[in-house]
Amino acid sequence: MDSPRRIFVILGHTAAITPDFTLNDLPGSAGRLDILCRCVTSALCLSHGIRTDVEVYLVLRDQVTVRFEGQSVKRLNPDERSTGALIKRALEALQEVPTASEQESTPGVFVSRSGLSFIVQELAAQGVSRVVLHETGSDIRVASIEEPLAFFLSDHQNFTSGEEMILEGCQRLSLGPAVLHADHCISIVHNELDRRAAQLLQ
Amino acid sequence: MDSPRRIFVILGHTAAITPDFTLNDLPGSAGRLDILCRCVTSALCLSHGIRTDVEVYLVLRDQVTVRFEGQSVKRLNPDERSTGALIKRALEALQEVPTASEQESTPGVFVSRSGLSFIVQELAAQGVSRVVLHETGSDIRVASIEEPLAFFLSDHQNFTSGEEMILEGCQRLSLGPAVLHADHCISIVHNELDRRAAQLLQ
Repeated sequence: MDSPRRIFVILGHTAAITPDFTLNDLPGSAGRLDILCRCVTSALCLSHGIRTDVEVYLVLRDQVTVRFEGQSVKRLNPDERSTGALIKRALEALQEVPTASEQESTPGVFVSRSGLSFIVQELAAQGVSRVVLHETGSDIRVASIEEPLAFFLSDHQNFTSGEEMILEGCQRLSLGPAVLHADHCISIVHNELDRRAAQLLQ
Repeated sequence: MDSPRRIFVILGHTAAITPDFTLNDLPGSAGRLDILCRCVTSALCLSHGIRTDVEVYLVLRDQVTVRFEGQSVKRLNPDERSTGALIKRALEALQEVPTASEQESTPGVFVSRSGLSFIVQELAAQGVSRVVLHETGSDIRVASIEEPLAFFLSDHQNFTSGEEMILEGCQRLSLGPAVLHADHCISIVHNELDRRAAQLLQ
């Protein structure tokens, strides 16, 4: 199986890590899980298809990670609620089978008890360049970057000082003058990389 | 009150025009209203604020228009469900007070029995340049454009031939090589215009 070219790691600081929330209230009872759902859609969904070369890690309170694999994911629709249902199912699977290793809860969706530090080590071992989006970074339109790339983003809260320490040494890129929601950032990142890839193909 | 600098007009071909749908099923019972909700968020929401110089028109089956005014909108949260609730409230207001003119259903949200043709005429009268996003258009990064601008986008379906006739003569711009969801397009449009505006301010 091919390795993904683009990886998005989104840190959910308040997100539910057990499935006892209602899909009717993703912002409240699920701890702003709505943000993470939109990030999954921005990262993986094209107008009529899935980006098969993309992978998304949702890191929930640095304790549980739900990973969406573009190449194999099924039942992914662009709306928040159905994505929330896939995450809820992953958290149920984690309760049912409390294994230490990663397990597949629905096709292409994987869940494990791991956090940011483990993901960063894993990506480093794979030789994937790591990027943090930051207003003081180099402009993405002129920066020297090469896929495969892993982008680290935060939900509605800033990175904690502990997370910033783990992410030290990552390349810093800025997208533009406005401070945006994580899912909107992902759309802009894809656009820049799609343009670069298309020129390479010409 | 200042006129908006950026206007997004999104055509919902299957969207509900009466409030008898459930917020638990925006894609199904509300006719892909989830797409339109995400467009509202992309158009109006910054990370911690609202774009006060933006206006969004949701044109539902060419019969009902719900307009969100960035300068005055209240109770707008970034999740789909709460935006769906504002649209549902607008459709309820339209049933309660069947007036011909536009009415405000919640602060900054307006509803009327009008369609695309009326909006195009109104924007033309205001001297707003009109843009359609299309893969054969000029690249937005190099195109000559000047705000105020109105962008016309479609939901999951293509423009109908009738809509294409109404939109004839609009400038055509392309965003990049990938065919994207309307809400993702809006994020990319904003990014380009934010960059241009920031350079103007330097």
